[in-house]
Amino acid sequence: MDKQRLQSQVDFLREIDKEKFIGRQTYKTDGKTKENDAEHAWHMAIMTLLLSEYANEKIDVLKTISMLLIHDLVEIDAGDTYCYDEDAKKTQAQREKACADRLFNILPKDQAQKMYDLWREFEEIKTPEAKFARTLDCFQPMMLNDATDGISWVEHKVKLSQILNRNSHTQEGSKILWDYAYNNFILPNVEKTKIEKD
Amino acid sequence: MDKQRLQSQVDFLREIDKEKFIGRQTYKTDGKTKENDAEHAWHMAIMTLLLSEYANEKIDVLKTISMLLIHDLVEIDAGDTYCYDEDAKKTQAQREKACADRLFNILPKDQAQKMYDLWREFEEIKTPEAKFARTLDCFQPMMLNDATDGISWVEHKVKLSQILNRNSHTQEGSKILWDYAYNNFILPNVEKTKIEKD
Repeated sequence: MDKQRLQSQVDFLREIDKEKFIGRQTYKTDGKTKENDAEHAWHMAIMTLLLSEYANEKIDVLKTISMLLIHDLVEIDAGDTYCYDEDAKKTQAQREKACADRLFNILPKDQAQKMYDLWREFEEIKTPEAKFARTLDCFQPMMLNDATDGISWVEHKVKLSQILNRNSHTQEGSKILWDYAYNNFILPNVEKTKIEKD
Repeated sequence: MDKQRLQSQVDFLREIDKEKFIGRQTYKTDGKTKENDAEHAWHMAIMTLLLSEYANEKIDVLKTISMLLIHDLVEIDAGDTYCYDEDAKKTQAQREKACADRLFNILPKDQAQKMYDLWREFEEIKTPEAKFARTLDCFQPMMLNDATDGISWVEHKVKLSQILNRNSHTQEGSKILWDYAYNNFILPNVEKTKIEKD
């Protein structure tokens, strides 16, 4: 039993509590409060359990869930970058890399590397797991935006072209989920003018 | 592609957003706001990824994480039952069973059964996965209570005997984590009189 190893792990686990304070732009289903990164990750982990059958390619469910659980930890220092904030997106990669270096290195070396690799894999969107994780990362907020009468889209005056651009990779993880989202979340909200048609 | 199947799954996933509104008695590390069930589940899922090496018996990590992600869903109707509220605990099982019946049955039959089985397995604390999940379900709030100077223990005037009774199963999942918690979370807070010695 390596005492220092366990202590490092507990230090990391206490530190990541901060993810619960990283706010997102998506409203929860009450339509009044916005979700945070931890809630968002929890929601997508359960989505993976239940929707993995729709992945275009067979995925390792544990690996996909692990990726989704940890992919936003880098926002603990870097903050959430709203997906339609073009200025903030310019410095996003640099801010998140700095956080990854600080945060993951609290862990023992082998686990720091494992977390770093998972995070990079998610960012690079190349493997079937990363592609499916990215699909859910777009599907989940669209589901909540639709469930809350599109208020987040209205607040930010989001245009259809922005959504389609943001979702350029969504069908690479799951054609079925992208088709569902397009027909059930996006189109009805264009019709209701919650999303600006351009 | 079974359209009704996917629709049931999305209906369930939208419904469980309500878990983000189920408050717990544990303070987050700011010492000011209390965590909710979704944040708690997310935290423990990552703990499983990093601490499974300390399980007394080898565990299936995906199964354990799945259990932890969904074990509090029954509180969506039943509410959180504080672990030291003896009155509320009398009706807890009945309230949670009613919620499980309503909630899981939104899903297609095979997945409803899978969720129900996972939840029951967690509740029965018999398998290595359920024992380890239960260990984390006690370890995580103790870690946060210690990190916030024991305010939740002080607010509820929690006695050492209550904590030891609550943790009667904790070492069955991981002797190492129980020893760590006893020496690093419990004893120092007894010394600082944040926990009442009785």
